[in-house]
Amino acid sequence: MTQVKGYAAQTANAPLTPFNFERREVGPHDVQIEILFCGVCHSDVHQVRDEWGGSIFPMVPGHEIVGRVTQVGQHVKKFKEGDLAGVGCMVDSCRTCSSCEQQLEQYCEVGFVGTYNGRELKTQEPTYGGYSNQVVVDENFVLRVSDKLDLARVAPLLCAGITTYSPLRQWNVKEGDRVGVMGLGGLGHMAVKLAAAMGAEVTVLSTSPNKEADAKALGAHKFVVTKDKEAMKSVQNYFDIIINTVSAPLDLNLYLATLRLDGTMVLLGVPPEAPQVHAFNLISKRRRLAGSLIGGIAETQEMLDFCAEHNIMSDIEIIPIDNINEAYDRMVKSDVKYRFVIDMATL
Amino acid sequence: MTQVKGYAAQTANAPLTPFNFERREVGPHDVQIEILFCGVCHSDVHQVRDEWGGSIFPMVPGHEIVGRVTQVGQHVKKFKEGDLAGVGCMVDSCRTCSSCEQQLEQYCEVGFVGTYNGRELKTQEPTYGGYSNQVVVDENFVLRVSDKLDLARVAPLLCAGITTYSPLRQWNVKEGDRVGVMGLGGLGHMAVKLAAAMGAEVTVLSTSPNKEADAKALGAHKFVVTKDKEAMKSVQNYFDIIINTVSAPLDLNLYLATLRLDGTMVLLGVPPEAPQVHAFNLISKRRRLAGSLIGGIAETQEMLDFCAEHNIMSDIEIIPIDNINEAYDRMVKSDVKYRFVIDMATL
Repeated sequence: MTQVKGYAAQTANAPLTPFNFERREVGPHDVQIEILFCGVCHSDVHQVRDEWGGSIFPMVPGHEIVGRVTQVGQHVKKFKEGDLAGVGCMVDSCRTCSSCEQQLEQYCEVGFVGTYNGRELKTQEPTYGGYSNQVVVDENFVLRVSDKLDLARVAPLLCAGITTYSPLRQWNVKEGDRVGVMGLGGLGHMAVKLAAAMGAEVTVLSTSPNKEADAKALGAHKFVVTKDKEAMKSVQNYFDIIINTVSAPLDLNLYLATLRLDGTMVLLGVPPEAPQVHAFNLISKRRRLAGSLIGGIAETQEMLDFCAEHNIMSDIEIIPIDNINEAYDRMVKSDVKYRFVIDMATL
Repeated sequence: MTQVKGYAAQTANAPLTPFNFERREVGPHDVQIEILFCGVCHSDVHQVRDEWGGSIFPMVPGHEIVGRVTQVGQHVKKFKEGDLAGVGCMVDSCRTCSSCEQQLEQYCEVGFVGTYNGRELKTQEPTYGGYSNQVVVDENFVLRVSDKLDLARVAPLLCAGITTYSPLRQWNVKEGDRVGVMGLGGLGHMAVKLAAAMGAEVTVLSTSPNKEADAKALGAHKFVVTKDKEAMKSVQNYFDIIINTVSAPLDLNLYLATLRLDGTMVLLGVPPEAPQVHAFNLISKRRRLAGSLIGGIAETQEMLDFCAEHNIMSDIEIIPIDNINEAYDRMVKSDVKYRFVIDMATL
């Protein structure tokens, strides 16, 4: 075992504080990574606060990890010491079920092993995430990271990036398609950048008129204030796909009506109460309401390569790790453009 | 103009009574059909009772029409006197919008012209449906009907048949796929027959254990009583597609959980209150909730040809037209296996 330093919540709702723990030795298929940056995802707060139930404490959050390889196991082929590497939301899965066989490990029928707040399949030991200085992960769940991009700004791609990239690919977004993006936060700002890079016409749908300049700076071509009835009317039957990143309660039907024939709204966030969906809204234009969960490992690599090719990175605010509790409070208030990233050198 | 006999509701909720009216002369592109049988669709009752608003009275319902061609216009190519012919839910559409260009006239952006309770595009004259002895329709909206099948049992294919066939094709149901059918009425019994003929494994999901024998006689391979928790557990993550024909209020989430990865529930009915949909239910298995509205004319012809090839017809109860009001009351109570069809010789 090797000694690792990190930050953990000792119990639900406790503030994060320094925490020393052990990681396993590097096995034959493992990659050991010195963590340089780790993004702060909204789900970190949900899990630290045990809002989804079943949280495991002490908890070291963090699943938007980038760093440098410090050691590799004897059978590792994809990585060597000194390489840049990334780890996202998963560190293992059953690898044999039909989902895993389709490279859709995020839908593993046994359940994928979360990078934190999960349990290793064989040992049932809890997993600890990226708010720490080192991690050991099976090479099949480690991503290659380009040295062309700003590493701190790559970190959020490992969750926010793939979560928005995957549905855009799944629903075959292409040149000239009309993409609507609901919510301009960590996920939403990535959806705008990625869809624009795919050649789509991107429209941000927002309750706040004052986000227009930011939306356009990120690459959006249009901006619709959803409280403006005339503006909403102008996009009736308009979008091929809407990426809905909002987890606050809202009336989905107003937005579904902006989908054209065969258009799809993809839900990425989970509102506290199940939204109501008018059947006729779907029937009248053969619309679809779908969900999507992060993305598989192969697709995550494809997304990272796509981002390197198109120079796409997250817009971030870098913080020292001892500001993490304040960052959580600000993130809950959506007071961040658009992702906090922890500089692990401050640990 | 030619004189036509039919049955009409003179006002909302009024019983249907004999009604004489006029149809247009046969134009150059028109087909005149002597109506032999007309199916009775649940939407006939909704519209006669003005439950959707905007009903036009007097109303001659009926959009599951089969009969024999008695006259054709000089430019008509597809039909000649003496041919069997059918008319479904539509008698016209704008023919130039993007939906019409894709042969999806049911999603016409101007709005298709309903076979009854609609208005002709040019004249704004009300349309009168199939509870009558004759109809005149542009040949582009007339279907060819095989003489191999029992004509009375073909009538319901024009609405119930195409409404269930279209989503099965749209979502690419094939040999070995697992299809769930919710609701065993006019639509549901056709969904069972069609999906089985496509080679799918068909399961009827029903609240009533006493429908099992009927479901299996129709071609279902499995039957799940939805109140039986163990039975429902056995079909978790199971179906590729669920055809939901139920318009009564129910908890969609229990059924969505029976869809496997990338599975789709297609809504065909409109419940009085918009159902709630748990986002996580869609996200966790990339499931989809979709809608579908009848089918285009070309697809309706494809469906009729498919039914002729596979000897598929509706299960019906033939009634004389003066039993129509009683039939409505029975249909509202689901007391029919599975479609009433009016024998127009009784007019």
